[in-house]
Amino acid sequence: MMSALKRFLIGRPLKSEELAEEKLSKFKALAVLSSDALSSVAYGTEQILLVLMTVGFVALWYSIPISIAVLGLLTILILSYRQTIYAYPTGGGAYIVSKENLGVPVGLLAGGSLLVDYILTVAVSISAGTDAITSAFPGLHDHRVLIAIVMIAFLTIMNLRGITESASILAYPVYLFVILIVLLILSGLYKYAAGGVSAAPQTHDMAISGISLFILLKAFSSGCSALTGVEAVSNAIPNFKAPAEKNAARTLMMMGLILGSLFMGISFLAYTYGITPRPEETVVSQIAASTFGRGPMYYAIQASTALILFLAANTAYAAFPLLAYMMAKDKFMPRMFTARGDRLGFSNGIIVLGVLSAILIVIAQGHTEGLIPLYALGVFIPFTLSQTGMMRRWWKMKPKGWAISFLINTIGMITTFSICLIFLITKFSQVWIIFLFLPVVIYFFIRIHKHYLNMANELRIDPKAETPVTKGNVIVVPVAGVNRVVLNTIGYAKSISENIIAVYVAFDDDDAQKMEKKWEEWNSGVRLVILKSSYRSILRPLIKFIDTIEWKTSETDYVTVMIPQFITRSWWHNFLHNQSSILIRAYLLNRKDVTISTVPFHLKH
Amino acid sequence: MMSALKRFLIGRPLKSEELAEEKLSKFKALAVLSSDALSSVAYGTEQILLVLMTVGFVALWYSIPISIAVLGLLTILILSYRQTIYAYPTGGGAYIVSKENLGVPVGLLAGGSLLVDYILTVAVSISAGTDAITSAFPGLHDHRVLIAIVMIAFLTIMNLRGITESASILAYPVYLFVILIVLLILSGLYKYAAGGVSAAPQTHDMAISGISLFILLKAFSSGCSALTGVEAVSNAIPNFKAPAEKNAARTLMMMGLILGSLFMGISFLAYTYGITPRPEETVVSQIAASTFGRGPMYYAIQASTALILFLAANTAYAAFPLLAYMMAKDKFMPRMFTARGDRLGFSNGIIVLGVLSAILIVIAQGHTEGLIPLYALGVFIPFTLSQTGMMRRWWKMKPKGWAISFLINTIGMITTFSICLIFLITKFSQVWIIFLFLPVVIYFFIRIHKHYLNMANELRIDPKAETPVTKGNVIVVPVAGVNRVVLNTIGYAKSISENIIAVYVAFDDDDAQKMEKKWEEWNSGVRLVILKSSYRSILRPLIKFIDTIEWKTSETDYVTVMIPQFITRSWWHNFLHNQSSILIRAYLLNRKDVTISTVPFHLKH
Repeated sequence: MMSALKRFLIGRPLKSEELAEEKLSKFKALAVLSSDALSSVAYGTEQILLVLMTVGFVALWYSIPISIAVLGLLTILILSYRQTIYAYPTGGGAYIVSKENLGVPVGLLAGGSLLVDYILTVAVSISAGTDAITSAFPGLHDHRVLIAIVMIAFLTIMNLRGITESASILAYPVYLFVILIVLLILSGLYKYAAGGVSAAPQTHDMAISGISLFILLKAFSSGCSALTGVEAVSNAIPNFKAPAEKNAARTLMMMGLILGSLFMGISFLAYTYGITPRPEETVVSQIAASTFGRGPMYYAIQASTALILFLAANTAYAAFPLLAYMMAKDKFMPRMFTARGDRLGFSNGIIVLGVLSAILIVIAQGHTEGLIPLYALGVFIPFTLSQTGMMRRWWKMKPKGWAISFLINTIGMITTFSICLIFLITKFSQVWIIFLFLPVVIYFFIRIHKHYLNMANELRIDPKAETPVTKGNVIVVPVAGVNRVVLNTIGYAKSISENIIAVYVAFDDDDAQKMEKKWEEWNSGVRLVILKSSYRSILRPLIKFIDTIEWKTSETDYVTVMIPQFITRSWWHNFLHNQSSILIRAYLLNRKDVTISTVPFHLKH
Repeated sequence: MMSALKRFLIGRPLKSEELAEEKLSKFKALAVLSSDALSSVAYGTEQILLVLMTVGFVALWYSIPISIAVLGLLTILILSYRQTIYAYPTGGGAYIVSKENLGVPVGLLAGGSLLVDYILTVAVSISAGTDAITSAFPGLHDHRVLIAIVMIAFLTIMNLRGITESASILAYPVYLFVILIVLLILSGLYKYAAGGVSAAPQTHDMAISGISLFILLKAFSSGCSALTGVEAVSNAIPNFKAPAEKNAARTLMMMGLILGSLFMGISFLAYTYGITPRPEETVVSQIAASTFGRGPMYYAIQASTALILFLAANTAYAAFPLLAYMMAKDKFMPRMFTARGDRLGFSNGIIVLGVLSAILIVIAQGHTEGLIPLYALGVFIPFTLSQTGMMRRWWKMKPKGWAISFLINTIGMITTFSICLIFLITKFSQVWIIFLFLPVVIYFFIRIHKHYLNMANELRIDPKAETPVTKGNVIVVPVAGVNRVVLNTIGYAKSISENIIAVYVAFDDDDAQKMEKKWEEWNSGVRLVILKSSYRSILRPLIKFIDTIEWKTSETDYVTVMIPQFITRSWWHNFLHNQSSILIRAYLLNRKDVTISTVPFHLKH
């Protein structure tokens, strides 16, 4: 039944040979990998205006130069990630670039930040999408955590169905959003050109008092949160159709172009319309309302904005499992992240991402706004590290024309590093936890690595010199009486060794005598040892006995404990049987060097 | 660590021989077994007054004759349960009496009602105690579910420590309550006799309109809820010191005497003081305030009332495990209820009672008032059945002087049956669920019984004719490479059989060839079968292979699957290993008739 449900949700399993068909075309890849970046259009401009508003209405003029600065940074990031794609065509982004050029610890820092960041991405964007829904339907406000969990479950299942299938379906809302925002900007510009804009923009030659470099930097760094998600393409190169790196580079350029245009368009319209951020209405909503009025176009834009906010999470679903896979291949993450699931995706990564972000949402009760600065910082740390790594690479290899590449990465490094510093300075109270969290994550990466290396050493044998050793066999069979289960188990035990000891734990003398008599009557040819338990525990006397056996014979014999187990026909029948066999097995397995044989007895009723 | 914690909470384990010391004296037994009944003093009179108030202030006069009627019923119940104790000196109460005299299904009905009822008792009385606390400290109101759960945990642990120990500690608050209420009644009577009572009682010769038989019956049945818990003594005879039945009978008489006096005293004072029930203050509180003023005595009475409400639950803790034990001995309940724990109590019964009542409180979010009628009906059903059973017994056996005994039980039966009917008629909307619930419970009793009988038949062998059968042995060893784990496992396998097949599941051809080569190099003397898995599942090809082996050899050979298992040093290391061995074991054990041997490999790191 479980497997039928799984099949219904996930689809039929795919053969390993079908992997090539699970690759993305540029068109689909753009939709999957840019949804995070594009969703920033919905809030990027607003973030800038919110900071400027703290100074006053007149400071809003600065939104134009700040937006241009963000656009400049975007251009640098796109160009430098393009270089990374060609330099590391098998993918990897910040983790690989840092590890190769700056050493393993730096690579782990980049990888750790990104992994944590993808979890934050899902939590933050799903919460934002949920907010959009509950703004439209306030009655649902009490169920926001539930809505968020359902959305995460939906995205998780879609991604478990395989990347092509999820891309095919999720591409529509992404392109719809792009088209609608382009229409909005064009109509807005036309209206502005035709002089139909009512609210006159502020003139910039007014004297603006109270504006400081601090505020401008804060506004700039807030605007930079629109650039999260830009690194996704370079992480996900293995998901592209051949020629993977060429397709990835083109997709990246395309994404930069779209993101840059939409972001500038919205910023420009917000300024010309004289729009100020309001708690009860978003900037995009205000622009759409002024341009189209509150008609069908307005509602289409609102709905598609809510959708893109949800889908921003999907970029993390594409990138997290791949990064986890690469780190697991390097033995820094549990091996399970390397296994491909039924639909050839890295299912464990997908599920872990879904579960952890759901937990985060439940803990925060859906209020994840406080996580946004943390999340932005978590992106710009690996940005900086990967730029630095690329600089190092150019410097070492010095290929033809390396100077320009080096220059691009240097500018990129300086800018992203500055943004990290700005985040740290302006929002320390919200981001300090990263200094606690990242070391813990990196510590675990290293512990995991050590464990795997130690284990490999322990397991290694010399195939020439070491061959299996045979020994004698002592078999201990705990019995609860003379019945069919015991009959079966003793029969099985006799087929593998002559040396069998049946053990009975008696709670009182009367009990012991009765059992002794029964056993003699039966005459099975197996000797019976009766242990007395004053404390009514079966486990303790049994363990003592096995200790003795082990101590006497472990040099010459393997010790096997043979445990009969009832297999009941319905699950609830398990409550009707003492589950001591499970307890005994768990204890012996963990503490003793004895083999446990479970002999099933399938009850017919 | 777990076992140290257990030892701290529960105490050192006791030997089976110490059981005799775990018996109760009359003094302690009265405290444990009467707390439920005595706690009714805190609310019994109030229940009557509440119903009468619906007619009007003048109807309160009827509380006196109604209280006398309740007292009469109490006398009948006490006398008839006294007869039951002598008739069934090994204990059992309604379940045993009904089963023996009216047949097994009726016995199950009585037993089922009582079991459910004990759970309700705990939930209702713990909630009442919590209400008393949160009335005193309103700031705790939001934590009422937590407080209730903590109290249940406390009672559960106390009872797991053994009945004598819990009785020694819990006897103090019970006797304190009795002494305080006796003092209250005496002082009240003295004040009344001295003419110091301000509110003049209503005279009873006023014309009272609007009072109907229905209201009177409803008030009477509400007052009867004070009689719940009377049956506890007859259930718990095995817990008494020898001579058990004599001690039990005396304890029962003593309990009746105390309960009757306190109940009548409170009812009389409430009437003479002209007290009306108020939502914000209990009747007992009003009486205490009028008698002593709001001084230390008043607060002592309030605190001890809160305590007795909590401790009412303790009676259920004494009775539930014993009843469950008796029904489990008759194979109507899971066998686990017959096991005595470390401290010789029936721990499983105690824990199950605690868990179920805690669940009930969480579901009801601490508002269990609605359960009271259900709980009262659940008591009067077994009352009626056990009276009927006793009637039948006298009629059949006709011992000397049986006519009087028969008469007592007949009156008892008619009264308790009438009360059942009154509950059904007056409170149907709150008790109908019992008609759904009891059949389900009884259905499960019967299913459990059938399962045990069927199993006994399946397991029975003829010790003369049936002896163990030996067969050959095929051993299947799934291997993941050539390493020390495989070396160990093959060594063990070779010691028990010659017929070994190592199985490797390869995900692609390359993988398969590499493994084949490695295995040849090793030359372990064991043949290797390589299975190809296109779908990256280890389980499915393995199961298919084992199916084939089974089909070929099951006539002549036992099939053993030998699964190596890593035992890691810290629990979190388990996440670093694919737990496929657990999956494979669970699947094979449940579906196939093969023995699973788990060969542990203890990792050193």
